[in-house]
Amino acid sequence: MFRYLALIIALLFSTITSAEDGYRMWLRYDQVADSERLAQYRKHFTQLVVAGDSATLELAAAELTRGIEGLTGRPVARADKASRAGALIVGTPNTSSTIAALKMSKLTSLGQEGYLISSRRVNGKPATVIAANTEVGALYGAFALLRQLQTHADISNLELHSAPSVKHRVVNHWDNLNRLVERGYAGLSLWDWGTLPAYKDNPRYHDYARINASLGINGTVINNVNADARILTDQFLEKAAALADVFRPYGIKLYLSVKFNSPMLLDGFETADPLDPDVQKWWQERTKKVYDYIPDFGGFLVKANSEGQPGPQDFGRNHAEGANMLAEALEPFGGVVFWRAFVYAPEQGDRFREAYDEFMPLDGQFKDNVIVQIKNGPIDFQPREPFSPLFGSLKKTNIALELQVTQEYFGFSYHLAYQGPLFAEALNADTYAKGEGSTIGKILAGDIFEYQQTGMAAVINPGTDRNWTGHPFVQSSWYAFGRMAWDYRLGSETIADEWLRMTFSNDPALLQPLHEIMSISREAGVNYRSPLGLTHLYAQGHHYGPAPWHDKSGRPDWTAYYYHQATKDGIGFDRTQSGSNAIEQYHEPLTQRFANPDTTPEDLLLWFHHLSWRYEMDSGRSLWHELVHKYDTGVAQVQQMQNLWDSAKDYVDTERFEHVKALLKIQERDAIHWRDACISYFQSVNGLSLPKGSPKPAHELEYYKRMEKELYIPDPWYPVPGGH
Amino acid sequence: MFRYLALIIALLFSTITSAEDGYRMWLRYDQVADSERLAQYRKHFTQLVVAGDSATLELAAAELTRGIEGLTGRPVARADKASRAGALIVGTPNTSSTIAALKMSKLTSLGQEGYLISSRRVNGKPATVIAANTEVGALYGAFALLRQLQTHADISNLELHSAPSVKHRVVNHWDNLNRLVERGYAGLSLWDWGTLPAYKDNPRYHDYARINASLGINGTVINNVNADARILTDQFLEKAAALADVFRPYGIKLYLSVKFNSPMLLDGFETADPLDPDVQKWWQERTKKVYDYIPDFGGFLVKANSEGQPGPQDFGRNHAEGANMLAEALEPFGGVVFWRAFVYAPEQGDRFREAYDEFMPLDGQFKDNVIVQIKNGPIDFQPREPFSPLFGSLKKTNIALELQVTQEYFGFSYHLAYQGPLFAEALNADTYAKGEGSTIGKILAGDIFEYQQTGMAAVINPGTDRNWTGHPFVQSSWYAFGRMAWDYRLGSETIADEWLRMTFSNDPALLQPLHEIMSISREAGVNYRSPLGLTHLYAQGHHYGPAPWHDKSGRPDWTAYYYHQATKDGIGFDRTQSGSNAIEQYHEPLTQRFANPDTTPEDLLLWFHHLSWRYEMDSGRSLWHELVHKYDTGVAQVQQMQNLWDSAKDYVDTERFEHVKALLKIQERDAIHWRDACISYFQSVNGLSLPKGSPKPAHELEYYKRMEKELYIPDPWYPVPGGH
Repeated sequence: MFRYLALIIALLFSTITSAEDGYRMWLRYDQVADSERLAQYRKHFTQLVVAGDSATLELAAAELTRGIEGLTGRPVARADKASRAGALIVGTPNTSSTIAALKMSKLTSLGQEGYLISSRRVNGKPATVIAANTEVGALYGAFALLRQLQTHADISNLELHSAPSVKHRVVNHWDNLNRLVERGYAGLSLWDWGTLPAYKDNPRYHDYARINASLGINGTVINNVNADARILTDQFLEKAAALADVFRPYGIKLYLSVKFNSPMLLDGFETADPLDPDVQKWWQERTKKVYDYIPDFGGFLVKANSEGQPGPQDFGRNHAEGANMLAEALEPFGGVVFWRAFVYAPEQGDRFREAYDEFMPLDGQFKDNVIVQIKNGPIDFQPREPFSPLFGSLKKTNIALELQVTQEYFGFSYHLAYQGPLFAEALNADTYAKGEGSTIGKILAGDIFEYQQTGMAAVINPGTDRNWTGHPFVQSSWYAFGRMAWDYRLGSETIADEWLRMTFSNDPALLQPLHEIMSISREAGVNYRSPLGLTHLYAQGHHYGPAPWHDKSGRPDWTAYYYHQATKDGIGFDRTQSGSNAIEQYHEPLTQRFANPDTTPEDLLLWFHHLSWRYEMDSGRSLWHELVHKYDTGVAQVQQMQNLWDSAKDYVDTERFEHVKALLKIQERDAIHWRDACISYFQSVNGLSLPKGSPKPAHELEYYKRMEKELYIPDPWYPVPGGH
Repeated sequence: MFRYLALIIALLFSTITSAEDGYRMWLRYDQVADSERLAQYRKHFTQLVVAGDSATLELAAAELTRGIEGLTGRPVARADKASRAGALIVGTPNTSSTIAALKMSKLTSLGQEGYLISSRRVNGKPATVIAANTEVGALYGAFALLRQLQTHADISNLELHSAPSVKHRVVNHWDNLNRLVERGYAGLSLWDWGTLPAYKDNPRYHDYARINASLGINGTVINNVNADARILTDQFLEKAAALADVFRPYGIKLYLSVKFNSPMLLDGFETADPLDPDVQKWWQERTKKVYDYIPDFGGFLVKANSEGQPGPQDFGRNHAEGANMLAEALEPFGGVVFWRAFVYAPEQGDRFREAYDEFMPLDGQFKDNVIVQIKNGPIDFQPREPFSPLFGSLKKTNIALELQVTQEYFGFSYHLAYQGPLFAEALNADTYAKGEGSTIGKILAGDIFEYQQTGMAAVINPGTDRNWTGHPFVQSSWYAFGRMAWDYRLGSETIADEWLRMTFSNDPALLQPLHEIMSISREAGVNYRSPLGLTHLYAQGHHYGPAPWHDKSGRPDWTAYYYHQATKDGIGFDRTQSGSNAIEQYHEPLTQRFANPDTTPEDLLLWFHHLSWRYEMDSGRSLWHELVHKYDTGVAQVQQMQNLWDSAKDYVDTERFEHVKALLKIQERDAIHWRDACISYFQSVNGLSLPKGSPKPAHELEYYKRMEKELYIPDPWYPVPGGH
């Protein structure tokens, strides 16, 4: 009977209450379990004083009301002025005379988005003040205070202040106009074009904005970089404007991905040459139209001359000429162009080199409202990449860092892979551009070069899935991106701690095992797929399963062989002088360091060197044995994650526990599949035997090759198989 | 400020509670508002006695507990035996000695699925008894009792009994293995193949089964009739088996759509000839494999030799030979074949005739475990069709009626179109097969011919959308199908009343306007698209917007002209002796009646006759003016629906009110578009002027023609436009 009773309990949860279906993300606001903290919070929040009336301040008031009432289980009275002990006063010096009277000098250093949270005495009574220079700053402060409560912080004597280190904190959606999401894995696009603009108050749009605002994200690009030109027609601008209206009070600007040859596709132009006056005029007029619909429109994101997308090079022009044409059209309205550096042409010898080789000659030629958006690594969101050498090299061009939350290369929404460690690795990477300590984080913060503006962007995957992201833990990577975009110095562990407390519970018995899961999950994904600097061994197209044997394709860099170069003698891509010499794109001492296998970090080794299978590693093992060891470790780490999750059973609600447990089972299956497929392929190349104790692959190589075609990947992105 | 406050309220609803997001369908169980009824119900249900322990009885107990506790706001104690006044006793004579002792003679007439609900005295105290011959019967009884409470019935002296009139009550999903749903419009497929079988206890699967069980639906075909052969591979059977495990205790059997040439696609056979012994052996072995995974598997649904699907005719065999081969493979396990009669070949002169012409010669040749599944009309789920002449004609072949809940031709999930009236129209259609009163309902109930078994099937559209069906009112058509499949005599109005009370409220102030909306919604859809027996004026492919001008296509019956035959002189399809003579397929007096325009019902007129634009209608208007009048009426009815909905504002929760209000706005836009596009096209053909008072189309005909291509229909079913 037990099984049925369990089901029935799940059923009751699923329909009677919203249960823990993940919809609330990290904004759950359930009552504080710690009785001491509960008492403190109840004492500190007896009334809410939000002076001024505007959409944004009303949202701050609503969020604080909902949050405090949920967390304390007590109503919070709204008041015009602080009249008793425990008032919470929110506003700006302009909207609140109380705040103006407090003369908080610190405010001057907090800019347009920073906030200050301070325990003060107001009218002789203890109060908490959330102050900012702008209303959106106050909204960010409201979320920051709630985060304190959600993580059980002592708030008896608060003196917090914070301001973002990067101007543009933007999420990117790869959503198509037919609602399919490229690399999304969490249902259909959130943007229900068919019911827009009529049904603009779909609660989901508002909750989407709340979730982003809670992190300080201030921009969203709502459509795929593989853009559909029709996004710039009245039919879609009217719909996009409705979304912009919803996002506006949350401090979020709307951006659009545009197709570079739109004048040809929409209005029959014969060219989209950025130097052609008629083309320039078309973009100026069309941009004006966009601003007629969306007065505070953020700007354009462009993928040009990359993977078949049109671009200025099709018309004999360069990236700067293309980007500047759009920048001129946007300039009168204060908009910006995010121009992606993700480019590589088939003829390129080493894809690693290309972005640098194409963009460096243009450094200084881009207009001030152009921002070149660079992926963290030189290839494409692989489980581990060295940082893109454009960071620290583009000195006179505004830049943005592009990260990926959606797990294109990390097992879609089936695998648990917290990306915080990867993001931190990128931000902490030292470019040595101006000597030691020239990290990418500091560069983005403007501490190294004089940029007009910088940004951080992440490709996120929220869709119509009830929990937004498919795998519940993909939420944690979205959270990590947002928090690091606000403050790049926050560590991956600190952020994981916040997220776990807000998303699950503050119970140490839960935190300990879940912390461990999150801290190993990304490395596990590296180990069972492509350790020691191997990369891109994926089946082409779906990027889910392994296909290291893949050596034929439309272009060499779309094969796995191109990346691992495995032969009887050795393995790895030689990017030293004897090879593509891509290492010359780095500053010293990195070039020297990467030139020598012995000084190259082992986790990047095969990114830069082609080495004998017998090359001796720090462990004393041969490269081949170390490789097998890493694959075995990856599988063991997934199994460890399973055990850790099971150990938290009593501290997680049934619904999320069973969901994640089932997904970890799938991940274990896939980790073993990856390891065995790769090992049996590499054995077929090097003829070497396995180290003692390493399990033999369960099947012959032929089986794994067959599975590349037969293993079914259910993703609506791919056309109906067989067709009908 | 008000607008923002409204948003904020919506926000609070959307995340703090599950609010009224439609997820609970008609199983909401909120506390009874009527204080008198509330008191009565509380008195009558003080304890719950469910004797016997099995998955199905536990589900009945759980549903009753949840339902009664929700509706009465009082806990219901579970007891081993009735010990106080107000016991609710549930079970079968086999599981419950109490019920056995009551010797309910009525039970014998209720079969394997019927139930009996009776107010009795047990151990000298008043009690309510739910009795059945089987546990699933008891589950149906539990839902039936809850329906009484949800609709505020007097339960002080219950004596209800009911048994289904049709054996197979089956829902069909047109879901593809990549999770796209053909003609679905409610998100992706519910079946998350990627997480099955590991995550079989996804609460959504259980709620899906509950929803169907609450209607007495006992079968589900989970994949598209345009079938993917891989559904019969181990990879998918393992996943399907997990779903079957979930559905089993709810009394729901799982069926699969199969591709007729599977032996060729899966195992490289050179033929799929149903008379080929190797092919027969393949199907026998594969069917055995299916039963190894799913011991109570229901059977196969087949779309053969229709719209490019393979079938027996590809190998020189007929439908009976094809169906019987599969039937033989299923027979040892008790499975059935649903063989669709939806066939038409390009060379056919009148598509209307084809199903009849192909199947009638085979009457009597199908095995007893074959059921020919026939759409209600001869063409394809149009807003109004005459009934398919196969009903009343196939006398020696088991038949099933196929209806469509998903709104392929009714405005997708954007339009409100309760299908109850259409379903009732089909069931009440008199075939005259054995004289007056030989309705399709009676035929399916087995009152006219001696069938081995019959069925009713509906193509439903539930997907990952939170409210299951996209438009909240599509739920009502799903409900109507299930209720009519259980009892074809239930009227469309009665069912609408049940659904409204369970889904919204019992408040007369709400019931009156919403009843009116539901009763006119289907006719409105006929009027603004294709009144007076016009049909299929849709844009090809998406079936959303109008394209009456469409006259070129791969085949004549894929053009609009084929259906309306509009010329300068007249309009309509002549199916009398002077034309295709399709009317000969009906029994008298229908043939005579349809032979003459004056005796043909005007709402079917142009289905059977090509008439002068000046033909005089009953109203005294010319056919042309009547046509325009109907188009105007359709638009007016949508506007009436908008007013009626607005009048219910105070009685509907904000969330569903705003959603439906927005959708009605879209529907009004589309109704006007349909009317104006059709009228301006027909005017271009007949050169006649509009009747006085009829509004001129807002645009020139060219505009509407352009819109056929440019009006964007966001449906993931269609490939990414423009492509990239």
